[in-house]
Amino acid sequence: MARAVSILGAGLVGSLLAVILRKRGYSVKIYERRPDMRKVSGYAGRSINLAVSVRGWNALEMAGIKQDIEPIAIAMCGRSLHMPDGSSAYQQYGKNNEAIYSVSRGELNRKLMDVAEQNGVEIFFDHRCTGVNVTNNEITFDVMGAEKKVQADLLFGADGAFSALRNSYSYADRVDTQQFYLAHGYKELTIPAAANGAFLIEKEALHIWPRHNYMLIALPNIDGSFTCTLFFPFEGAPSFASLQTREEITAFFESTFPDALALTPSMVDDFMQNPTSSLITTRIFPWHFGDRNALIGDAAHAIVPFYGQGMNAGFEDCTVLSSLMDEYGEDWHKILSEYEQKRKPNGDAVGELALMNFVEMRDKVADPNFLERKKIEKDLGKLFPNEFISVYEMVSFSHTPYDTVMKCIAAQDILLGKVMGSGDFDKLISTESFRNELNIWIKEYYASVQQLDFGTTTNK
Amino acid sequence: MARAVSILGAGLVGSLLAVILRKRGYSVKIYERRPDMRKVSGYAGRSINLAVSVRGWNALEMAGIKQDIEPIAIAMCGRSLHMPDGSSAYQQYGKNNEAIYSVSRGELNRKLMDVAEQNGVEIFFDHRCTGVNVTNNEITFDVMGAEKKVQADLLFGADGAFSALRNSYSYADRVDTQQFYLAHGYKELTIPAAANGAFLIEKEALHIWPRHNYMLIALPNIDGSFTCTLFFPFEGAPSFASLQTREEITAFFESTFPDALALTPSMVDDFMQNPTSSLITTRIFPWHFGDRNALIGDAAHAIVPFYGQGMNAGFEDCTVLSSLMDEYGEDWHKILSEYEQKRKPNGDAVGELALMNFVEMRDKVADPNFLERKKIEKDLGKLFPNEFISVYEMVSFSHTPYDTVMKCIAAQDILLGKVMGSGDFDKLISTESFRNELNIWIKEYYASVQQLDFGTTTNK
Repeated sequence: MARAVSILGAGLVGSLLAVILRKRGYSVKIYERRPDMRKVSGYAGRSINLAVSVRGWNALEMAGIKQDIEPIAIAMCGRSLHMPDGSSAYQQYGKNNEAIYSVSRGELNRKLMDVAEQNGVEIFFDHRCTGVNVTNNEITFDVMGAEKKVQADLLFGADGAFSALRNSYSYADRVDTQQFYLAHGYKELTIPAAANGAFLIEKEALHIWPRHNYMLIALPNIDGSFTCTLFFPFEGAPSFASLQTREEITAFFESTFPDALALTPSMVDDFMQNPTSSLITTRIFPWHFGDRNALIGDAAHAIVPFYGQGMNAGFEDCTVLSSLMDEYGEDWHKILSEYEQKRKPNGDAVGELALMNFVEMRDKVADPNFLERKKIEKDLGKLFPNEFISVYEMVSFSHTPYDTVMKCIAAQDILLGKVMGSGDFDKLISTESFRNELNIWIKEYYASVQQLDFGTTTNK
Repeated sequence: MARAVSILGAGLVGSLLAVILRKRGYSVKIYERRPDMRKVSGYAGRSINLAVSVRGWNALEMAGIKQDIEPIAIAMCGRSLHMPDGSSAYQQYGKNNEAIYSVSRGELNRKLMDVAEQNGVEIFFDHRCTGVNVTNNEITFDVMGAEKKVQADLLFGADGAFSALRNSYSYADRVDTQQFYLAHGYKELTIPAAANGAFLIEKEALHIWPRHNYMLIALPNIDGSFTCTLFFPFEGAPSFASLQTREEITAFFESTFPDALALTPSMVDDFMQNPTSSLITTRIFPWHFGDRNALIGDAAHAIVPFYGQGMNAGFEDCTVLSSLMDEYGEDWHKILSEYEQKRKPNGDAVGELALMNFVEMRDKVADPNFLERKKIEKDLGKLFPNEFISVYEMVSFSHTPYDTVMKCIAAQDILLGKVMGSGDFDKLISTESFRNELNIWIKEYYASVQQLDFGTTTNK
């Protein structure tokens, strides 16, 4: 008989995992610390917009709700860069116009809960887990102030960056943990839709105002508005600490983001009223204890949002787990061991990639050299589609394991260094001697990475 | 009026800190989760022997109990190395026969509690802290199953590697934490005294049986016995996991530690009966919140025991805090800020040093090259007493900040590389040309480190 599964957290990953397990015949109960977001009006939850990329779509398809999400997703085919001098530039993400998709976190979560319940998953709200005995799977909840104990059979912690199960793991012997915050926090702002509901700036793009040590970004919403996020230092000048008065804030936006300010009459009020949040990265090992319990999604690997991969990585945890169930049936010791072995290095790697991409978004994208490199990467991808795929494309448009992506970075730096050190690529590529040289470099690059595990869909 | 101080933990650091604060006129209460170790017969507590070095003595002197501890301390002036072939070697620690001192953790702790109470400190036993509200300093205890709340004024967490205050810190926004375990665990064993109470091996030494990936060590006790600790991998071959049967354990000790086994009839029984413990390193930042609370000792920086610096570092936290009270009176915001700024880099550094010394003790000490280097270090220290002090001497026989020691390591490696690369030091040193060259190298070394902060007692 299939085991009974308990899941902590009815967020994106917990709800999706519940659907996947229920479809395989497991009975599934989810315990969620918050009230039912579908019944609470004005409930926002965590609101950084989501960018669904291929790993996420794959998981949504497996759950059978891809077609429900597509209508509320807005394709973003590239970055729209807004420079301090008022000029702008556009940087396409993929060589074939592939996109990442802006989706409302709340909408997606509601849909996933609906599908879970339609499949027979029970969700218990207002159940705040206060601890788990990781040896015998006894869970303690605080339910509206009353203590409640639940005995779990098979337990997953899908309860996010501040996971109660992760916390209980951290008390067990020989569990390694790490958490660290960025020196930057974030604040959400909103560019409204036009009076006629139109988008005031390009709809199908991820907008960035790169300002070296900080940045403002904007992602489109289906109502014509944009959710903006200012990623900004907590301390220093300028910083959240240094901007205190209305005058200081206004002067800052006028001099730094005049175009965004012009679109948003309430910008300064929003800045003063909206909370400032922090950005955490977490690591832990192990990810499971025996065949009893395991961590998944942010609970196993909370990351910063700069690669838009947090949800995508958590969803990929679910699809990997699903394929391991195909392989090992109900041998959960085997399933959870292989899950940990496969996913832990990827959890670490996507955390690194996300940290690195913050520097890229807030600083490098404004560098002509970097834009030139991005262009050449696309040309190389078209010239050598089997040998060269850029890091961004591997992360967002393939299933290449994140730790393989990390291992490709140094080799791509060497290759691009050679190409860019040779002179004007557009001119050189028309000469046979350069093309011959380029062929050798590409072969060298390919030789250095082809022994890596690229998964099943790329660099075959 | 002086503030009321609450301290979590009546261990070595908590008790010492209480004495220091009480002597300055603060009212002090200590809350200890265990029963009173002075009243529980056979209570062992954590039992790795302590090696008191200069930082520890300094603090004990400040608390006025140096003279009480000296009679129960055994000087260890060097390492006695026991090689696999049955040979042994002796490696003196300091150039002037300085010693570190083997002391019973339990005895020292009992004495410190006595002194604390004699000075008017109140100790509440069986008070297990289950959480602290770090914003308002409300402490929750579990007292023999009953919940008790205490409102602290100024609060210190001296509650060790698994500190409850540290744990409460880790939930606060923007607190970075890390904990990691070694792949090695340890098990305590005992070499008994001779029938007449004599020491069966050299009394005034720290004994090491270095075996590359693992080691056995022995520290003298005043009753003639030695507390031995086997530091050994959890997994692999050989390991705690691989040695299961009496036959396997006996065969292992017979082939690996025949001399120690011959002195200890109960070695195999002890191995089978005694628990296996793990070895954690922790880091955290910040170390304090405002003028309300702070972490100290292992609670702030739990380290592995291989440099014998855990207690010494914790005691030095207390002496630094004491000197900051001299400087800033009762401005606790200033005191705790400077304490964190001064000690956090040292907590990280002593953790690193301790990890590095494990490799030195279990592996390098058996390497003739390493022994040659140690000898040359001593010669250099005698030839250039103002310019050159070895890393071991800085850690154990000076107050040089640990992070300064870390910064000296690379420079000493360069210097010793030059000296040892020149040939036979004992012969070369009699030639004027080599002495001239050596003078230049020492000047270069000194120039590279003299801008560092060496504290007040060395490398002036």
